Amino acid sequence: MQKLDPLKDNLSSVELVRISGSDLDIVSAARVCFGKTAESFGEREEKLIAYLLKNKHTSPFEHNQLVYKVKLPLFVARQWMRHRIGVSYNEISGRYSELPLDFYIPNKWRIPDAKNKQSSCFVNLKNEAELLEKYKKSIDIAGKTYKELIEAGVTRELARCVLPLCTYTEFIFTCNLVSLMHFLNLRADSHAQWEIQQYANCLQELAQPHFPSSFKAWIELKKQNKENL
Amino acid sequence: MQKLDPLKDNLSSVELVRISGSDLDIVSAARVCFGKTAESFGEREEKLIAYLLKNKHTSPFEHNQLVYKVKLPLFVARQWMRHRIGVSYNEISGRYSELPLDFYIPNKWRIPDAKNKQSSCFVNLKNEAELLEKYKKSIDIAGKTYKELIEAGVTRELARCVLPLCTYTEFIFTCNLVSLMHFLNLRADSHAQWEIQQYANCLQELAQPHFPSSFKAWIELKKQNKENL
Amino acid sequence: MQKLDPLKDNLSSVELVRISGSDLDIVSAARVCFGKTAESFGEREEKLIAYLLKNKHTSPFEHNQLVYKVKLPLFVARQWMRHRIGVSYNEISGRYSELPLDFYIPNKWRIPDAKNKQSSCFVNLKNEAELLEKYKKSIDIAGKTYKELIEAGVTRELARCVLPLCTYTEFIFTCNLVSLMHFLNLRADSHAQWEIQQYANCLQELAQPHFPSSFKAWIELKKQNKENL
Amino acid sequence: MQKLDPLKDNLSSVELVRISGSDLDIVSAARVCFGKTAESFGEREEKLIAYLLKNKHTSPFEHNQLVYKVKLPLFVARQWMRHRIGVSYNEISGRYSELPLDFYIPNKWRIPDAKNKQSSCFVNLKNEAELLEKYKKSIDIAGKTYKELIEAGVTRELARCVLPLCTYTEFIFTCNLVSLMHFLNLRADSHAQWEIQQYANCLQELAQPHFPSSFKAWIELKKQNKENL
Repeated sequence: MQKLDPLKDNLSSVELVRISGSDLDIVSAARVCFGKTAESFGEREEKLIAYLLKNKHTSPFEHNQLVYKVKLPLFVARQWMRHRIGVSYNEISGRYSELPLDFYIPNKWRIPDAKNKQSSCFVNLKNEAELLEKYKKSIDIAGKTYKELIEAGVTRELARCVLPLCTYTEFIFTCNLVSLMHFLNLRADSHAQWEIQQYANCLQELAQPHFPSSFKAWIELKKQNKENL
Repeated sequence: MQKLDPLKDNLSSVELVRISGSDLDIVSAARVCFGKTAESFGEREEKLIAYLLKNKHTSPFEHNQLVYKVKLPLFVARQWMRHRIGVSYNEISGRYSELPLDFYIPNKWRIPDAKNKQSSCFVNLKNEAELLEKYKKSIDIAGKTYKELIEAGVTRELARCVLPLCTYTEFIFTCNLVSLMHFLNLRADSHAQWEIQQYANCLQELAQPHFPSSFKAWIELKKQNKENL
Repeated sequence: MQKLDPLKDNLSSVELVRISGSDLDIVSAARVCFGKTAESFGEREEKLIAYLLKNKHTSPFEHNQLVYKVKLPLFVARQWMRHRIGVSYNEISGRYSELPLDFYIPNKWRIPDAKNKQSSCFVNLKNEAELLEKYKKSIDIAGKTYKELIEAGVTRELARCVLPLCTYTEFIFTCNLVSLMHFLNLRADSHAQWEIQQYANCLQELAQPHFPSSFKAWIELKKQNKENL
Repeated sequence: MQKLDPLKDNLSSVELVRISGSDLDIVSAARVCFGKTAESFGEREEKLIAYLLKNKHTSPFEHNQLVYKVKLPLFVARQWMRHRIGVSYNEISGRYSELPLDFYIPNKWRIPDAKNKQSSCFVNLKNEAELLEKYKKSIDIAGKTYKELIEAGVTRELARCVLPLCTYTEFIFTCNLVSLMHFLNLRADSHAQWEIQQYANCLQELAQPHFPSSFKAWIELKKQNKENL
């Protein structure tokens, strides 16, 4: 299976573990409404998919499934798991397992965007090396304290209290095309935090070849919506 | 694809259109919680599945998908569609299509169960042939009226108002193993209406070979729960 | 409690049974995100509500509840209950109760709209009185057959098979402002069947006085979206 | 409004902000199924509630709403937010606000339970004072680093990466009686982490006076289920 590294640190990862359904299956589900079936996929089917998506007839896009395995920092996982509808999760438990001491280290600082409250900009801060040292020292102490507490006998569920939000976690994420597109609408957007945007782009990159017409229609629609703002 | 006829009238049907996931995938999802993976399926994996189900750790059972195509009377469809969580539907539309005049004719009458308010019993009523004639006449007139209204130009969405609850409809039903087992707990149960029990049994019959250990554990659990009542 | 009669036949009804939450509570929920609270409602709060809705930050609109009691024909109930997210239902059961023989009789026929596949137009059909007689006769026979089957001892769940889709049913419908607005977007729309549009309008009429700023913003947004089409 | 302090540190809190519905409303919703209404609450109504709960007829328990405001450590919030069905959240955002440096300090260590993998036991560790110093030092450095990063201009969403899982967060949690009872079944249970058990107990303590018969039945059922294990 293809494995992407959204944060380019050899720790983060997004893998598409299993997939079920296709553009043709979406057309089949839609045609059930008309008492008809779909045998093959051509120009007409492509147009139907675009029409359904544009008119928010999303139910035919639910009869499929994408199962991903994702390794990501806790603060990204917290944003991710706000998604509740049409999604399933199984995450590594810090109660049952000692967590690996993998941490996300940003390789460039960002400052708040002056124009857009929700955005941030990559910059060269004059003391950036010094800040990075402090960041690393802080999480290094956290990691050591975690280890010391566990060695002293403290239960894992309590020891983890010191672990920082940049600690990596891992989960299985299952969705269908409707919940995935909803995720992408919110998280592949410039208003989302940069890190989760990278994950959203990877989810899309892995899904797109399996539903080419659906993604073509979705991208076209996104473009039109932007022009209408 | 195997096609079953739950109501034995050559009109009703349940087909398993597409399936994704397996018992092994359930174990894999569960082991993510422990930071581990699952390579092969053996006795240990079977025990884990039984343990998970017994202790209601159902999240690992969500990362799979079963897509069914079902033809069923409207009154069964109404009971079915009360299920909202982890399920998707696409149904033939009586607004876009003229509905085929297929009707469910019970081949034996049932009376209320004297002991159990929610149940009914098959009986020989003395005037059963006469009752069946009345039933058939009523739906025959309904079907003819539907046709006449449409031929007179009345829109389909209004003409269907006369169609009876035994009219057949068709939908795609998509679920995962958690929502399927919840459906079976309620609908393959003796408190459910006899007709939907037949459909529930067919759903199970088609799913079981794909998740043998999960269904083994589910059946065992059902037996134990009954003994505890 | 105010009771509306959406289909103007003294049988249909929509009542708002209970309500919890207000525009101010929506602002409070939104301000939690900023670590702030909301004390009073003014121009700034109204603008915040419009901003949230426009930018699809819908989560603050979920912390409220509207409980309706609705009497409606079965074919409308079937469209209604396709809504699964953020909604709850309790419906009169045709298994536990003998259903009252209340039927919806359209007081004017509609034909398919030549331009819009999903729409229909009110018309004077030349033989409309005759069609109405046939419609009434068909449902009259259905009602009588239902009664006869029950009197002969047939269980209610089976006798109802003959009842037409215009039979009235009754349910409690509970939603929050997000699920209500989603319902209204789809069902108060000209593409929806005329009957369910009437119900959607009643839901809105009863809810609007309790959330005036939210509905002001929603109506404004709907207008803008139409202009962008 | 009554405010509880589940972790007894003057930082944690659970408040019931708003409530809608009652035991009588549950009976009313159930009686809709029988085409009946509920006027007053007596012994018969209490029995009906117990019967419904025992037989998992939970839909009548959905037409009510409880809105809580909760202040809790991040690791508890992460367990909490795994609940997806029939719940709504609005949480303070570490992107829009600088987070207050409030941390959870356990006032007694726990070690893993030798018998029950999922449990832990309070103990006197010989070096407990020393461990507490290390814990406090680790989170103190984390807090200082957070401040320094923000003062140096780093965007809040990135600076928070160093904050530990014991940092307090705050959210509005909205549920109905079905989703609340499901939450309590899992989280007021001895298999849940001690900290979330304290929160679950507070949720129950605040809700119980508003639904006395429902909680009476729920507690009775829980006792019976334990005896059957």
